[in-house]
Amino acid sequence: MTLVLKNLRGGKIERPTMLLDRRRALLNLERMARRAREGGVVLRPHFKTHQSADVGSWFRDYGVTSITVSSFSMARYFASHGWKDVTVAFPVNPRERDALVELAGEIDLGLLLDAEPVARGLDEALSHPVRAWIKIDAGYGRAGIRWDRAEEAVSLARAIVNGKRLRFQGLLTHSGHSYRERGREGVERVHRESVSPTCSVAGDFEGVDEIRPGNFVFHDLMQVRIGSCTEEDIAVALVAPVVGSYPDRRALVLYAGAVHLSKEALDDGSRPCFGVLAHASPGGLGSARWDAPLVSLSQEHGVVVAKGEALDGIRPGDLVAVYPVHACLACDLHGSYRTFEGGTLTKLRY
Amino acid sequence: MTLVLKNLRGGKIERPTMLLDRRRALLNLERMARRAREGGVVLRPHFKTHQSADVGSWFRDYGVTSITVSSFSMARYFASHGWKDVTVAFPVNPRERDALVELAGEIDLGLLLDAEPVARGLDEALSHPVRAWIKIDAGYGRAGIRWDRAEEAVSLARAIVNGKRLRFQGLLTHSGHSYRERGREGVERVHRESVSPTCSVAGDFEGVDEIRPGNFVFHDLMQVRIGSCTEEDIAVALVAPVVGSYPDRRALVLYAGAVHLSKEALDDGSRPCFGVLAHASPGGLGSARWDAPLVSLSQEHGVVVAKGEALDGIRPGDLVAVYPVHACLACDLHGSYRTFEGGTLTKLRY
Repeated sequence: MTLVLKNLRGGKIERPTMLLDRRRALLNLERMARRAREGGVVLRPHFKTHQSADVGSWFRDYGVTSITVSSFSMARYFASHGWKDVTVAFPVNPRERDALVELAGEIDLGLLLDAEPVARGLDEALSHPVRAWIKIDAGYGRAGIRWDRAEEAVSLARAIVNGKRLRFQGLLTHSGHSYRERGREGVERVHRESVSPTCSVAGDFEGVDEIRPGNFVFHDLMQVRIGSCTEEDIAVALVAPVVGSYPDRRALVLYAGAVHLSKEALDDGSRPCFGVLAHASPGGLGSARWDAPLVSLSQEHGVVVAKGEALDGIRPGDLVAVYPVHACLACDLHGSYRTFEGGTLTKLRY
Repeated sequence: MTLVLKNLRGGKIERPTMLLDRRRALLNLERMARRAREGGVVLRPHFKTHQSADVGSWFRDYGVTSITVSSFSMARYFASHGWKDVTVAFPVNPRERDALVELAGEIDLGLLLDAEPVARGLDEALSHPVRAWIKIDAGYGRAGIRWDRAEEAVSLARAIVNGKRLRFQGLLTHSGHSYRERGREGVERVHRESVSPTCSVAGDFEGVDEIRPGNFVFHDLMQVRIGSCTEEDIAVALVAPVVGSYPDRRALVLYAGAVHLSKEALDDGSRPCFGVLAHASPGGLGSARWDAPLVSLSQEHGVVVAKGEALDGIRPGDLVAVYPVHACLACDLHGSYRTFEGGTLTKLRY
């Protein structure tokens, strides 16, 4: 294992490229599939993290037939790649209603609702049934009816049940506030309080029908930080050309900026961390070098400043790998993935 | 002027869309062209902000014939749209050398160098002349030879001058540390110390040959914050469908997330600000509603929490406009611009 990537299979890498360690992703997938099986819940993975028909196809081998997405565009993309049971875990956008009505005629579509007028308008427009979930805000404060407003939820449920096409499924939550926790104990507490996934650490799915984990297939530094994985589980890294080397200040400038990694940062008190260098061999990704963090990001540049000798001997023209802080946002910025086997995996691009 | 966008010309807007106020952009452009003319410096605008051949064409009417970009991909894109004099204000990436050598045979290319081995390798590979600038770090601490290391710069200059194809042009700086300032006085001080652009406020270009401002054509909330423009100068806003309305907590959920705006934030002490709602009429953009900021961003969701009654009456299905914190990063996330005239402007998409 070395910090400079050598002998990667496939064509020469010239630009920032998202590299996917298939072996690690499959291990992550296998672990989650087992967890769901043992917990007696349906695994309906969230595909917003990878947004890739190729990566999606790996899930079929683990018996996955139903998926989650976070936009109607993703729903259409995966429907066009043969997925027939898709929940859009995002409030219904009335402006996309015509396209939604059309897709409901082609696949089994699940939708989130938290407002009666939207539910009624949609029901009138539909000519095929769709599954309808009531989105409950379990404490995160984003979308949904607040958990303590039972009357509002009951009234919406009644409107759904009385609709022609909407089929009431139940309540749906997302405990986004688990991201504010640091460590397994905090994540487990959020899980117990909201009886909602946080699936990588939870051991008890009582009261839960299905889980919709997404990030787990790739993981990232934020997941390491909150305690839901270790760095050996991270399955994607940005391959970045080195374009500047400054040994006197123990710094590298990488061709790796906010447009390749996103500006999601870990807050390490003194300065933000936008990623850390990763070891890699021709066979796959290795350990994270927390002593070589990206301390600043411009549009196209990233600056690594090492705490010790980590960068010694690295020169312009070398390739290094960077573990992202937030895999979902970093992957969204790329049109495809490169694998260690030398292949290219396609993904959705707007 | 209202917070809900109505009667926009052109096709129906269903998804998050970058809206461009052409009138404002042209005013920004005219102001900068005059500033350069009066200061006796060449205006070589940075096209990384808009990355659009259509927007780029407006600059020709102001006599602009030379441009700046921040990646080799952008250089190729604009070369393919007729720009013949392009400086890549990013350290030479040795891994793109073959493509660079080819482009140097087609247009007048300017490059940044800060390391002798890269300069020598490039010079050997080139078959046509290119303009070479030595990148100097004027205090920002990103790329470049430190301003106080004259010997290193002289040695590199000698290598360039002795090369076959490299044509030594001089020194080039970027005072990125001006972004850390708040207010005109601070920006003017950085300008004086580094004799480098910060072009929207500087009144004296002595010792400067050309300026490479970029963001000025669109401006954004960060530029308002540092004092280089007012909110009446901001020429882009994200049009976002409202998908949730929560009057009890004075909140909206927008279809506008980190993948549409980027996670660039203004730090307002108590909580981050990822954008603010903007007034708009069918004729153009209006004032910024600082009392209606986006206080959190997920991948696809943005949450607005108002300080007063700003959101009263806004419902799912309405369209609102959001001024971005950082126009360069927000625009990079979109494949085109929509104008108030109802047209679509193309841009580079990787």
